[in-house]
Amino acid sequence: MQSLPTPPSVPSRRDLLAGLGLAAATPLLLGVTPRPALRDRPSRRPVPGGRAVLLRGASLVLTMDPAIGAGPLGAVENADVLMRDGAIAAVGTALRPPPDAWVLEASGKLVMPGFVDTHNHLWQAVIRGGCTNRDLFGWFQGCTDPQRGRLTPAAVHSFVRLAALDAVQSGVTTLVDWVDIFSYDLIESYVRALADTGVRFTYAMFPPAPDAVLVRKVKKELVDPVPLGSFQVATHAARAVQDHNRAHWEAAQDLGVMLNSHVLERPEQRADDPIGVLGDIGALGPQLLINHAIHLTDAEIAAVAEHDVRAAHCPLSNMRLASGIMRLSELGRRGVKVGLGLDGGTNDSSDFHALMKTAIGLQRARTTEVGVFPQVNDVLRMATLGGAEALGLADRVGSLTPGKRADLVVIDPAALNFAPRFDWVGQIVFNGRPENIDAVFVDGRALKLGGRLVDIDTDRVVREAEAAATRLRAAG
Amino acid sequence: MQSLPTPPSVPSRRDLLAGLGLAAATPLLLGVTPRPALRDRPSRRPVPGGRAVLLRGASLVLTMDPAIGAGPLGAVENADVLMRDGAIAAVGTALRPPPDAWVLEASGKLVMPGFVDTHNHLWQAVIRGGCTNRDLFGWFQGCTDPQRGRLTPAAVHSFVRLAALDAVQSGVTTLVDWVDIFSYDLIESYVRALADTGVRFTYAMFPPAPDAVLVRKVKKELVDPVPLGSFQVATHAARAVQDHNRAHWEAAQDLGVMLNSHVLERPEQRADDPIGVLGDIGALGPQLLINHAIHLTDAEIAAVAEHDVRAAHCPLSNMRLASGIMRLSELGRRGVKVGLGLDGGTNDSSDFHALMKTAIGLQRARTTEVGVFPQVNDVLRMATLGGAEALGLADRVGSLTPGKRADLVVIDPAALNFAPRFDWVGQIVFNGRPENIDAVFVDGRALKLGGRLVDIDTDRVVREAEAAATRLRAAG
Repeated sequence: MQSLPTPPSVPSRRDLLAGLGLAAATPLLLGVTPRPALRDRPSRRPVPGGRAVLLRGASLVLTMDPAIGAGPLGAVENADVLMRDGAIAAVGTALRPPPDAWVLEASGKLVMPGFVDTHNHLWQAVIRGGCTNRDLFGWFQGCTDPQRGRLTPAAVHSFVRLAALDAVQSGVTTLVDWVDIFSYDLIESYVRALADTGVRFTYAMFPPAPDAVLVRKVKKELVDPVPLGSFQVATHAARAVQDHNRAHWEAAQDLGVMLNSHVLERPEQRADDPIGVLGDIGALGPQLLINHAIHLTDAEIAAVAEHDVRAAHCPLSNMRLASGIMRLSELGRRGVKVGLGLDGGTNDSSDFHALMKTAIGLQRARTTEVGVFPQVNDVLRMATLGGAEALGLADRVGSLTPGKRADLVVIDPAALNFAPRFDWVGQIVFNGRPENIDAVFVDGRALKLGGRLVDIDTDRVVREAEAAATRLRAAG
Repeated sequence: MQSLPTPPSVPSRRDLLAGLGLAAATPLLLGVTPRPALRDRPSRRPVPGGRAVLLRGASLVLTMDPAIGAGPLGAVENADVLMRDGAIAAVGTALRPPPDAWVLEASGKLVMPGFVDTHNHLWQAVIRGGCTNRDLFGWFQGCTDPQRGRLTPAAVHSFVRLAALDAVQSGVTTLVDWVDIFSYDLIESYVRALADTGVRFTYAMFPPAPDAVLVRKVKKELVDPVPLGSFQVATHAARAVQDHNRAHWEAAQDLGVMLNSHVLERPEQRADDPIGVLGDIGALGPQLLINHAIHLTDAEIAAVAEHDVRAAHCPLSNMRLASGIMRLSELGRRGVKVGLGLDGGTNDSSDFHALMKTAIGLQRARTTEVGVFPQVNDVLRMATLGGAEALGLADRVGSLTPGKRADLVVIDPAALNFAPRFDWVGQIVFNGRPENIDAVFVDGRALKLGGRLVDIDTDRVVREAEAAATRLRAAG
């Protein structure tokens, strides 16, 4: 058993203990890692790949696996979580770690699976706060389209890295990025930024026109080589481009990946008849992910449920763009697999706690019924295992089931905005903030520890994004 | 011109500069204050009362005073803000500070008035995350009432201090606390906690039964001696207790303070006819603050507007409790003075950015019209000057008008969740998080600097609240 070495720029627990005359073998206390006094120094990853990690004595572990713990969230109190070879090895009490394991003392902390963001457009970090008085179409015209036209590979890398790291620091461990960026060099830069971040991602590629060769090339050359990357084909389901939709669906089937489409985000998109179109081409099924899906009719909800179509709910974005309120209660009652999505520039936030409480609040706002779906347990599941199910990734992530990949977050409830303990499960949803995310592991690797991203010079990331945005404006 | 001394526990800028061989006279850079490596040491207030403070070269100052800057928010770019004797002395470029002024370099930062929270119940921090599946009445029964019955003076102090500090760190500089706690020793402890925090506050006292002597005594002995304290009389407007409402209104008039009532939070409260009751006793007017006011009829909205009644809007709380959506657009169109409120335990959050964006989003959600009131400028005004107007405090706070008290926040946009600059005004509302609040000044005194509360051992505050909650549970 060893304490966790911290990057050289951070005074290590061992140094502090030495200063206090204490033994160096005392395990590191998560969350009390002294903040680095200086940045910009070289550092090494505290948790090299492959090494076992034991989170010891977490006060509450929400495994999301009822077979492991109590209730629908599979809750276990005062438990250890052992990660080995990038996977969850065990959850239990008094686990004996392998001799070379890193041991992190998690007493007082909460552990749960990382958040699964089922819908984003990370590059849109460049238009944060923009076109706030526009609806979807006005926002395309005023903000999205002009900026997209100016992107360079370096700019793409800057914005995607910034937004992906923001997501990670907020507890996101898997994200789906629906990308309507067309040239190979931009796509290459996009995927590299995602890969560099260390987050698990799905690149949903929207081809401007049917181009099975390019789609296959991007998947094979850019995404497949990234261990944590996966691929989807993206589309805009609409009668006017039904031949495109059919070609994209064929490409998706050919590659064995999901088709990912925006559906009925605005009432005006009724004219596109997207569910009808997707039905006509035979795409309704578990290989289809529909985003927003706000203005579904009863018959369309029935069809979505019957065919096990998956959905991404983006309540913060929907409020901001005046898109309407998804009929989430109805979808939930019918058992549709719905995940939550941050949706890039339009909700301008990577705050998954805000996303969860808004998913609850919007249904209550429209009904004044407190008992409607979703409740606290439901959104916690949607934010994790439910999202993984919607993406067909539940065999790999979404719960702390032994054998699954080790994607998890550690929450520190000892904060002014979170304490004292009353109902921790409710507090995660209603009190939690990104700043309470103490540690983030993806595939067993620590991306955040002690409240800070590991081995990332965030000041530089911000500076570079700022410089890239300035260059884009100058070019515009 | 001098650099800002930091508490002894924090390596000072001067120490760092000395280490780098640079001159000590370089002004402190806001936001790059090294984080303290250790806590729990004695420290002194960096900005002693009375000393002038110059924020130099802020990239954007939203004064909220159109006479000072551009547009409805009175925006000035690259400006200094000078505070002297606890007041705003000047906003402008190249201001010359008095010789003894503290100079804080604010280049790259945004400055605006602090947030005015028009409705809270801070003691309810003890029930954070509780009764999340209950509406207002269920939440009273299951969470609020049982906890209130067990409070001790020490517990009150712990919870109020915790929640008030959380509000301050999130940028709140003025708050109204509607308190239904009855014994003098509890009230004394409550007011002391508010006073200790250094926040500007209004104690809205709900007397269990008409008791003009107790009300006067609390005001005179407990609240009046606190320089930043003010007083209101609280009530529950309802037919069944009309004699109480009348007595409370008479007490308020006698003391020259506002009457503060919950109104139509739930549809079922129509039976109370609160606006009718308040009209009958002659209370409709600018000395009346109504909270929630969700289920107002057209006629009631007209009466509220006609009599210049003030309102507190609590959208996060309203979503959580399934209370409904306030007709804020209609109230705004009629010019009703509406402020925003966090509302204690029920919204479980002191995130004013979330509050602002939800105030926008709920109106858009119910209408699918992006142009409805409020827009970004409107919520920024509601969160500051509008709140001050609603409380009758606009002569003192709410804008950075010279002569007003110096209540302001400094926001650092150089963060993963905020950068790059695109539309900073939109970004404050849609991207901002409490963690981006770099500094908070109340009455010219720094309560937060470099992203940390000044002279507060937050770990101890959290520990004490946790211990108090544990004792309450044991007693229950």
